Amino acid sequence: MSRVVEITRRAEFSASHRLCNPRFTAEENERVYGKCANPNGHGHNYVVDVTLRGPVDPRTGMLIDLKLLKEIVEREVITPMDHRHLNEDVFFLEGVIPTAENLAIAIWERLAPHLPENLLWRVRLWETARNYVDYYGENEQGARRA
Amino acid sequence: MSRVVEITRRAEFSASHRLCNPRFTAEENERVYGKCANPNGHGHNYVVDVTLRGPVDPRTGMLIDLKLLKEIVEREVITPMDHRHLNEDVFFLEGVIPTAENLAIAIWERLAPHLPENLLWRVRLWETARNYVDYYGENEQGARRA
Amino acid sequence: MSRVVEITRRAEFSASHRLCNPRFTAEENERVYGKCANPNGHGHNYVVDVTLRGPVDPRTGMLIDLKLLKEIVEREVITPMDHRHLNEDVFFLEGVIPTAENLAIAIWERLAPHLPENLLWRVRLWETARNYVDYYGENEQGARRA
Amino acid sequence: MSRVVEITRRAEFSASHRLCNPRFTAEENERVYGKCANPNGHGHNYVVDVTLRGPVDPRTGMLIDLKLLKEIVEREVITPMDHRHLNEDVFFLEGVIPTAENLAIAIWERLAPHLPENLLWRVRLWETARNYVDYYGENEQGARRA
Amino acid sequence: MSRVVEITRRAEFSASHRLCNPRFTAEENERVYGKCANPNGHGHNYVVDVTLRGPVDPRTGMLIDLKLLKEIVEREVITPMDHRHLNEDVFFLEGVIPTAENLAIAIWERLAPHLPENLLWRVRLWETARNYVDYYGENEQGARRA
Amino acid sequence: MSRVVEITRRAEFSASHRLCNPRFTAEENERVYGKCANPNGHGHNYVVDVTLRGPVDPRTGMLIDLKLLKEIVEREVITPMDHRHLNEDVFFLEGVIPTAENLAIAIWERLAPHLPENLLWRVRLWETARNYVDYYGENEQGARRA
Repeated sequence: MSRVVEITRRAEFSASHRLCNPRFTAEENERVYGKCANPNGHGHNYVVDVTLRGPVDPRTGMLIDLKLLKEIVEREVITPMDHRHLNEDVFFLEGVIPTAENLAIAIWERLAPHLPENLLWRVRLWETARNYVDYYGENEQGARRA
Repeated sequence: MSRVVEITRRAEFSASHRLCNPRFTAEENERVYGKCANPNGHGHNYVVDVTLRGPVDPRTGMLIDLKLLKEIVEREVITPMDHRHLNEDVFFLEGVIPTAENLAIAIWERLAPHLPENLLWRVRLWETARNYVDYYGENEQGARRA
Repeated sequence: MSRVVEITRRAEFSASHRLCNPRFTAEENERVYGKCANPNGHGHNYVVDVTLRGPVDPRTGMLIDLKLLKEIVEREVITPMDHRHLNEDVFFLEGVIPTAENLAIAIWERLAPHLPENLLWRVRLWETARNYVDYYGENEQGARRA
Repeated sequence: MSRVVEITRRAEFSASHRLCNPRFTAEENERVYGKCANPNGHGHNYVVDVTLRGPVDPRTGMLIDLKLLKEIVEREVITPMDHRHLNEDVFFLEGVIPTAENLAIAIWERLAPHLPENLLWRVRLWETARNYVDYYGENEQGARRA
Repeated sequence: MSRVVEITRRAEFSASHRLCNPRFTAEENERVYGKCANPNGHGHNYVVDVTLRGPVDPRTGMLIDLKLLKEIVEREVITPMDHRHLNEDVFFLEGVIPTAENLAIAIWERLAPHLPENLLWRVRLWETARNYVDYYGENEQGARRA
Repeated sequence: MSRVVEITRRAEFSASHRLCNPRFTAEENERVYGKCANPNGHGHNYVVDVTLRGPVDPRTGMLIDLKLLKEIVEREVITPMDHRHLNEDVFFLEGVIPTAENLAIAIWERLAPHLPENLLWRVRLWETARNYVDYYGENEQGARRA
């Protein structure tokens, strides 16, 4: 009977963004997003921690080939987001307000189809060294970890 | 249907403390707390990670205004604790033995009334770079995450 | 009624290992483990975060004496593993392929008998600053945190 | 006779930039700056370490009031650069290609007039956790530390 | 002909202090030291980086036995300062205002007699993760690195 | 007249080694190198910080193309050393006792011929998070920074 573990792999990308809801007025955006609403944008060194959860294969002693996980994260997340403007240059963020919350969700949805079913456990996105968001694929209806 | 995320904000304070139970003898305090019982006290650069958990507002893409969270943590926790002696100078720690465990609990209770209901998820308190305590608002009766 | 907290203590060891399943051919090992299969091995500065979970003793304000926890981790894990070759020098890893997954499980099993029952909550093993494994004592049958 | 020490204070700002020389063609900019030339820009969490060097005042035991240094760095560097686009929003960077090298030099020149003479020793600017620039106020003619 | 290198070893201690000059009035202390003058004191997790500089012994490939350096730092600095009140408990700080500047100088003077002549190069003392002091054994008269 | 800056680029590799001088007896090796003399070796996550020093090109605002520096460090240092046994697998370390001191010197000599003349300023090699060696290309005769 296999042991269940969680394995986490870290990657980084540097990008710019601006926070604004196009349906808000400039004043509303300023009020809601503060200095993050600066029209010319600003940027971050984002850090993504991708966690998988599942049984250890007793033959290999591994949950997944980390090199494979690294390649998937690189191809699906880092390459399209690194050195980009998240509001302008990233097709899968079209129409998304690039808050840390929404970015963590978007990265989850971008990764899930490329990973064995039910293996993706958490996407953690650090925006700065002082704040990060965790997304576990949950919605209000059926919380996965309730 | 909103997605559920957790968001964490970090803050720091530098304080001194000494560990002793006034109902113990000096020998008992020395045995229980070791060098932490030094009568003149010692100190730490504490790090507090405050985590909220709840639905993302689809209009703003945010769980909470991080600036607001920062202000609450600053006003309720950092200002009264920073550059203070935790046994002497902090009114809400009166009668509390300032172990990392008790400090995490006290910070939770200090923050909870100032946050939207059910949003506070975890208080993590780092005492040094090598040890930290997590408190999720649980007691032995009804464990929140059991 | 006692509050329930989690407390984490960090320790480090430097060791070498090579990844190979003796029942695989050299080609299979190369395919499964890539550069980690290098016959002369390679090494890491491992970081172990040991987390206990349980009620705070109201008399001491502590879950456990951290000095005691430190001594147990030192004696059972760090001393036998530090500055060692994990495939050759560590008796409790005999027959274990020393992947990060298997090392986290082995450290759990090594520590559990020396700790008060049901207190051990998680072993986190960092292999590099970019990847770590969490083990919560779970198997596929009865997931502890399901 | 006073002892001479160096004291360093760290601050952070998050900003976006794009690297391009307006006198280069698009192809030259692409060749010289690679993905940093992306027209929509990208961003970083910059870290600035400001170092002063000089004698310790024997009456106070201090080289400078750190609170004062913090205020100067905040007012002259962090406020105008944080959450800004370095090519568009920062008046003292007009005409400057915002490479890490040029930013370190610009921060030096911005700070020097506000500090006691000869006290500024080094500006270190981290662009990511993997690369930083040090500037000691030197030019090719008269190297200060030759 | 031997190569010259610098080798640095890190250690930590947790201590409390208060900043005040007994010859100042309470008002002067408050004005000079701000919240650091709090009479009950506060504390830090200090980090000390001790750097030696000298020739590599070609027979061993080492500048010094790091284990020996570790023992000296432990015995002379960490043991007397860890979990202490720097104004009250540390005999070699008697009469010293425990600013980061003065602590770095005191640690230098404490270590130098126990090390081979001319080997001690720098004492770096981190007070928090955001500020540190470097001392190279210099005074205003004869700067060692002028 | 160009400004002179220093730019540092970080890279990592994981490797194993054992410390022994083949001309020493086993007892001497044990005495000199302690647990580092373990015949089966041990390992580290090494971190290399390569620093160049020179004038900023006023046309590009750069000292060197960081991408080029990254490629040189990758090709000359990381690829041959990563996931290797430093005593067995690395041709340019033949006959070298792989102490941190000697590794920093060997990396300097490996990099210097591939960089523009006089640009290489420092190789810093971290063996663990608690000790590192700096090499500035100096010998006892003519210290470059005397």
